[in-house]
Amino acid sequence: MNFNETLTTKVQNIEKIIKQFLPEETGYQKTVLEAMNYSVLAGGKRLRPMLVQEVFEAFGGTGDVAWPFMAAIEMIHTYSLVHDDLPAMDNDEYRRGRKTTHVLYGEAMGILAGDALLNYAFETAFRAFDKAETTKYPRIAKALKVLAGKAGIYGMIGGQVCDIESEDSIEPITAEQLMFIHEHKTAALIQASMMIGGILAGATDEKVAELERTGYDLGIAFQIQDDILDVTSTFEELGKPIGSDEKNHKQTYVTIYGLEHAKAEVKRLSEEAISLLGLDSDSFLAKLFESLIYRSK
Amino acid sequence: MNFNETLTTKVQNIEKIIKQFLPEETGYQKTVLEAMNYSVLAGGKRLRPMLVQEVFEAFGGTGDVAWPFMAAIEMIHTYSLVHDDLPAMDNDEYRRGRKTTHVLYGEAMGILAGDALLNYAFETAFRAFDKAETTKYPRIAKALKVLAGKAGIYGMIGGQVCDIESEDSIEPITAEQLMFIHEHKTAALIQASMMIGGILAGATDEKVAELERTGYDLGIAFQIQDDILDVTSTFEELGKPIGSDEKNHKQTYVTIYGLEHAKAEVKRLSEEAISLLGLDSDSFLAKLFESLIYRSK
Repeated sequence: MNFNETLTTKVQNIEKIIKQFLPEETGYQKTVLEAMNYSVLAGGKRLRPMLVQEVFEAFGGTGDVAWPFMAAIEMIHTYSLVHDDLPAMDNDEYRRGRKTTHVLYGEAMGILAGDALLNYAFETAFRAFDKAETTKYPRIAKALKVLAGKAGIYGMIGGQVCDIESEDSIEPITAEQLMFIHEHKTAALIQASMMIGGILAGATDEKVAELERTGYDLGIAFQIQDDILDVTSTFEELGKPIGSDEKNHKQTYVTIYGLEHAKAEVKRLSEEAISLLGLDSDSFLAKLFESLIYRSK
Repeated sequence: MNFNETLTTKVQNIEKIIKQFLPEETGYQKTVLEAMNYSVLAGGKRLRPMLVQEVFEAFGGTGDVAWPFMAAIEMIHTYSLVHDDLPAMDNDEYRRGRKTTHVLYGEAMGILAGDALLNYAFETAFRAFDKAETTKYPRIAKALKVLAGKAGIYGMIGGQVCDIESEDSIEPITAEQLMFIHEHKTAALIQASMMIGGILAGATDEKVAELERTGYDLGIAFQIQDDILDVTSTFEELGKPIGSDEKNHKQTYVTIYGLEHAKAEVKRLSEEAISLLGLDSDSFLAKLFESLIYRSK
């Protein structure tokens, strides 16, 4: 199988795992359960659960203790999109070609479905305790701390707050603020995915710190590539208007540092990520990194 | 000290404990940290952390392993109020005489502060792992499952969803729906508080089931008393318009079953709660139950 075939198979397998953890749509709370499942099953790359699984296996992990965390991190990613799309936030009516959750179920249910997904993510992650001997509980405790830490005010939510505030501000964003937003809003959950995979497989603290650095490189490179594509891509390739950042006077890595420096930085980060983990360039994980970074849409 | 003096001292002590776990208001995410602390420090009875602590001590618990859970359950209660007050939900501008969070910080920040509090509640609860030997980790895992379960779609959020939908519906609410809402929206977190106190102190499964039943009785009695007061109290006593349920054509326990039956049910539930735990009628916990149920506002 070539890389794309392997990727497709892996995504299908991950979606099967996630579905096992989704709630049944019954009872008086049926509507919110439907809204939760609609949001999670709206598609997407399943990048975060894939990173949990790939790193878990790369560090010699076996069994299904990582499964609840794979589903949990996808639920957290999904709740953040559901709340980002709300009228008081980005006010988006479509995502991946489908109506957003609040458009279909109403704004109150959009808020509640997001809350429910965040809460259920932890409820789901706690099921890892049922899949492990009590001697493994310290690992699970450590993974839970990483999950909550990288999703919260010192992680993803912190980045989102800074992003919202900088959009409302008349001051142009500084380079430092921009990197704060990228590191927290984008990189944090990618870091969490990789760290959790390592922790659950028994990686040393030193290795977990390397995974955190790798997740940072990967997340930032992904985000800079996004800014590059907004300038260099065509409408057909990107499937959305190009040059929109410049038109919206939005400061990006490219507008602050220029296109050449941005491209060089993506290359540097990508190479660092691969070498940090000592990956064979033919390995699935190395190819996954490259496909994420050097993408054309 | 009489009951009220003891209560005041205990509330002050609990507020000191909660404050230890609140975030420092610094960094690019400062605004959301301020909004979180504003919401948590808006006052309230601190009933849930008090129940965690009292039950923990009643079952022989010692040390500070329950503290993170006391702060966590108050954060979860607070986030639910912050989101309930949002324009798309109850659209309340004041709570306990202070502006609600979204009125002061804007709607986007109201949503994010609620999300942040829910996430931070788990982040905080995980600090219990740092306060216990690893041999106690199974207890903490059990307490975490109760916390998330009673706060989520099969607990508080489930009740809120049913409540919102029944308000939007032209059909009058059934007695079964009403009890579903009360059990989930009000009783679930009270059950969680009592169960977590017991679990962390090493109570048997049988005792934890009794605590769950007691929390149910207490939560339902509290809610029925609310409905009774809406009919029997004066404006001065209640501090809000009386008879508002009837005016809003709102179905309550009193409108469905009548005032006499409602009063009898409060008495029965209250007596059952006290006898289930085998409490001395002079004990602080028995008096706390009675003060909660037989209140005049």
